Amino acid sequence: MTARPEISPCACIADDVLLGEGVTIAAFVNLYGCSIGHDTRLGTFVEVQADAHIGARCKISSHTFVCSGVTIEDEVFVGHGVIFINDRRPRATNEDGTPQGPQDWALEHTLVHRGASIGSGAIIMCGVEVGEQALIGAGAVVTRDVPANAVVMGQPARVRPILSIQEGRKGNEAR
Amino acid sequence: MTARPEISPCACIADDVLLGEGVTIAAFVNLYGCSIGHDTRLGTFVEVQADAHIGARCKISSHTFVCSGVTIEDEVFVGHGVIFINDRRPRATNEDGTPQGPQDWALEHTLVHRGASIGSGAIIMCGVEVGEQALIGAGAVVTRDVPANAVVMGQPARVRPILSIQEGRKGNEAR
Amino acid sequence: MTARPEISPCACIADDVLLGEGVTIAAFVNLYGCSIGHDTRLGTFVEVQADAHIGARCKISSHTFVCSGVTIEDEVFVGHGVIFINDRRPRATNEDGTPQGPQDWALEHTLVHRGASIGSGAIIMCGVEVGEQALIGAGAVVTRDVPANAVVMGQPARVRPILSIQEGRKGNEAR
Repeated sequence: MTARPEISPCACIADDVLLGEGVTIAAFVNLYGCSIGHDTRLGTFVEVQADAHIGARCKISSHTFVCSGVTIEDEVFVGHGVIFINDRRPRATNEDGTPQGPQDWALEHTLVHRGASIGSGAIIMCGVEVGEQALIGAGAVVTRDVPANAVVMGQPARVRPILSIQEGRKGNEAR
Repeated sequence: MTARPEISPCACIADDVLLGEGVTIAAFVNLYGCSIGHDTRLGTFVEVQADAHIGARCKISSHTFVCSGVTIEDEVFVGHGVIFINDRRPRATNEDGTPQGPQDWALEHTLVHRGASIGSGAIIMCGVEVGEQALIGAGAVVTRDVPANAVVMGQPARVRPILSIQEGRKGNEAR
Repeated sequence: MTARPEISPCACIADDVLLGEGVTIAAFVNLYGCSIGHDTRLGTFVEVQADAHIGARCKISSHTFVCSGVTIEDEVFVGHGVIFINDRRPRATNEDGTPQGPQDWALEHTLVHRGASIGSGAIIMCGVEVGEQALIGAGAVVTRDVPANAVVMGQPARVRPILSIQEGRKGNEAR
């Protein structure tokens, strides 16, 4: 099954966006300077900023914000209302009162590896790495790296050993 | 007093949506396959998916996501940025790498009873039932059923006995 | 450096909005009855309600909701998906079942002082005051006043003494 390729006429997609084949984009989406891989689906009210890269066959759900400096590999699920962060100490202005521009703060990168799944309402702090097939619980605030296949939850997010998935997709069998 | 019936020209409303009389819909709302009861008000940036049902005289505030499988009875308040969930272990793809479709996961239903109030930023996990007149605090992550008239808060949300409302709308008298 | 003045044609801006010079407004923004100061930048999917006032040189990031009764002074950073609240015990309807209007509940004001920074995903309860240059961590739920220069985090948000910034913008030097 391939996602039905469809791009809403109510989406704002800048000319510099790279879209793979079969990409599905819902209404009220805002994209600029980013790349979206084949067959990836973007939900309503999603924004993806410049220099963010999303792989193939991902699902990025409604109300989610993917900022500059985030790389999401293939087959990643990102829930609704997920927020990525790239600035550890954000300020509106410099000390002289001028509005901050890109040159006034240090962008920290975030990397989400293949097959990971990020629950709705999670917040992913800057500079972290989320391992392959990891599961991040809904509402978690992720402040440090998440190992591959781990399950993390809470604020701040911590590994839940009892729920860890030792063998890849095994967690799906319980459905 | 009846809500002034008004539907923003900037809303996306699919042909299969059932709208009651006197419904108010703000800008940048996305609705498909759902039903909205009489005099209910939907705020900006709200999405309501197929097979979600919202009763009469509800208020669904901005930035809120109501997914398939959610039923909201009459006179319910849903705050801003509230997220409902219907998939306990979401994944972008199946084990063979094909994008997941509706047939590839088990939808779990959520039911919010009459007169309940869900605070802004709350996350409602799948499969729960929120009782009549219950109050869910802002930012709560609701992982289990909420009794009628109870007040719950926190992550995960727990009942606060001292704040419980024993007699329906009594809580409003303190305003 | 001054922000490039630009207002998206995809924004909804009511006739009664007061916009300062050099204001930047992204796509899918909804403004009514509010005032926005000089050189302030509003991100995508932001709503600012009537009787909310935002000062000069602020940055209000995507997916954020600023409600009636909120005053934000100059040079304030508000992250992505931040939610302000103005009603302590919201209900959809009155006891007689009629939809609640503005006259049916008590609005509580919130004041954010100059130079404060509110992390992404934070929830600011009604009736609080955020001091000058204070930093609110991502995902915090702020339920009480935040002192000037303090750093608060968590749900509910509490001061982190070890991170407090004693001398204004000192925190930025660590970047």
